[in-house]
Amino acid sequence: MAAFIDGLLEAIDLKGSCAMVGLDPRLELLPPDITKKAFEKHGENVEGACQATLEFCQRVIDVTARHVPAVKLQAAFFELFGWQGMRVYDMLSKYAQSQGLLVIGDVKRCDVGSTAEAYARGYLGPVAIGGKQEPVWDVDAVTVNAYLGWDGIQPFVEIAGEYDKGVFILVKTSNISSGQLQDLVAEGRPVHCHLAELINYWKDELMGLEGYSSLGAVVAATFPKDAERLRKLMPQSYFLVPGYGAQGATAKDVLPSFNEDRKGAIVSSSRGVIFAYHRTPYANKYPIERWEEAVEDAVLDMNEDLNAALAERFPQF
Amino acid sequence: MAAFIDGLLEAIDLKGSCAMVGLDPRLELLPPDITKKAFEKHGENVEGACQATLEFCQRVIDVTARHVPAVKLQAAFFELFGWQGMRVYDMLSKYAQSQGLLVIGDVKRCDVGSTAEAYARGYLGPVAIGGKQEPVWDVDAVTVNAYLGWDGIQPFVEIAGEYDKGVFILVKTSNISSGQLQDLVAEGRPVHCHLAELINYWKDELMGLEGYSSLGAVVAATFPKDAERLRKLMPQSYFLVPGYGAQGATAKDVLPSFNEDRKGAIVSSSRGVIFAYHRTPYANKYPIERWEEAVEDAVLDMNEDLNAALAERFPQF
Repeated sequence: MAAFIDGLLEAIDLKGSCAMVGLDPRLELLPPDITKKAFEKHGENVEGACQATLEFCQRVIDVTARHVPAVKLQAAFFELFGWQGMRVYDMLSKYAQSQGLLVIGDVKRCDVGSTAEAYARGYLGPVAIGGKQEPVWDVDAVTVNAYLGWDGIQPFVEIAGEYDKGVFILVKTSNISSGQLQDLVAEGRPVHCHLAELINYWKDELMGLEGYSSLGAVVAATFPKDAERLRKLMPQSYFLVPGYGAQGATAKDVLPSFNEDRKGAIVSSSRGVIFAYHRTPYANKYPIERWEEAVEDAVLDMNEDLNAALAERFPQF
Repeated sequence: MAAFIDGLLEAIDLKGSCAMVGLDPRLELLPPDITKKAFEKHGENVEGACQATLEFCQRVIDVTARHVPAVKLQAAFFELFGWQGMRVYDMLSKYAQSQGLLVIGDVKRCDVGSTAEAYARGYLGPVAIGGKQEPVWDVDAVTVNAYLGWDGIQPFVEIAGEYDKGVFILVKTSNISSGQLQDLVAEGRPVHCHLAELINYWKDELMGLEGYSSLGAVVAATFPKDAERLRKLMPQSYFLVPGYGAQGATAKDVLPSFNEDRKGAIVSSSRGVIFAYHRTPYANKYPIERWEEAVEDAVLDMNEDLNAALAERFPQF
């Protein structure tokens, strides 16, 4: 097997896309036919909600899998429906992998060392049960929160190293109040830079063959100045970049997350792609029953937008 | 319904205990009979592991429910077994509540605002499905990570306020490297103090009738000097105190987390209680098949230890 990061680089190259579709299904925004059918068959309850979510996400995967290297599965919108929702999460993760996509488990988990190990094993490695090793969630990479310090991250890095998986540490998030703790200045630089230095120190544990590490960072496009600085602090870590599209950042805002080799970032869009049929220009172009075409258009437009910005910024490629 | 914090205060008073049992089941440490039986019946697989975990935890609840006000369910050790493990988590949460225990979901979740709302609704409030409101996990309180800033916490606070639930924000954790980010000094004080000030500012949103807020903080006993300072910064927030017992902190170390009214902290022990049968003095006193007596002894000893330290520190009560 290849390191996660080498697989990601290959997939980005193959698909001609540094975009990632974020699966953040919100029941109230699904095409009404899907919800109606699921409620009729399973009831207006958790089971019905799960079935609607499953069908919607599978169909989003079907129309986007050819165009992007990876999907990001946001656990919150599945956990919302209890263990039944997590069952759907698992089914979708395995379905996306079967369709040739890398799956980023956007779980943002964290805990102290020995407990973090349980999360890391569950999501990335096989789990020891009696004398056997059983794969469980088995996603390709996860997002983690490092507020607890390195001993809470180390198990993720170790298990990722053993099983060729990836880890993206939250460094600078896309939300309005992300600065409250992340931007506090200690020893002359913001907290998020301290974290970046730690990541850069530990990146060697997960180095791939192409000069990048499978120890990456979540760095939002909504704060391009911070991204520019973080890019220099972590030259060999891939950035998972949220904030593009519905959250307000443009293709220009994601450019600071790239290195001079035109690599270094994978840009995530969730609502902007999967609910494209609710917004212009797609809502005018397609009636709701042709929602999949709107989703496919949106992902192609995102690819075009990002690739155009990259071509302008890096004309040598 | 009463505010979460008033229910907790009442339960602490009723049980004469400020201790909490942490359910961190580790398959390899369960009494061998339980695991053997589950593997024989369900196979040496995820299902077998889940059944063993379920039986063990139910029996721990049975022998400890009379002695403590609350249990803390550590999600990692259930999520380790996939959605099937999360199903067991849900069953145990509801079982513990049926046995008169408050359930703290130790999930340490975090995300940006609109996504955090999905976690908050799933764990604390009912979830809107079509025209209905369905309870899902419905635990009594959760732990959350505030690295993303206030807009990731606000949904938890709002939903906790609406449904009389509690929220414990990670402020200073018990692990060795907790200081890497939490102790960085910005504007003259550590990051964890900045967070404490935010919590103290927002505590009024969840004030109960007895002078305490349902917006609490996780403050480890392993750093008693920090706890002392944090106690002053958040006088009306209850502290969930990890680190006692197996992690090395003593009853004396938890005292700084209490206020002068002898209230303000609930002390969690996980391995030290639930796996008491593996360690002295309990392992010598009971053969393994009497493991439940060891667990019950351990929880009673913990109560006695904490109550003796409190009696010495607060002789007026």
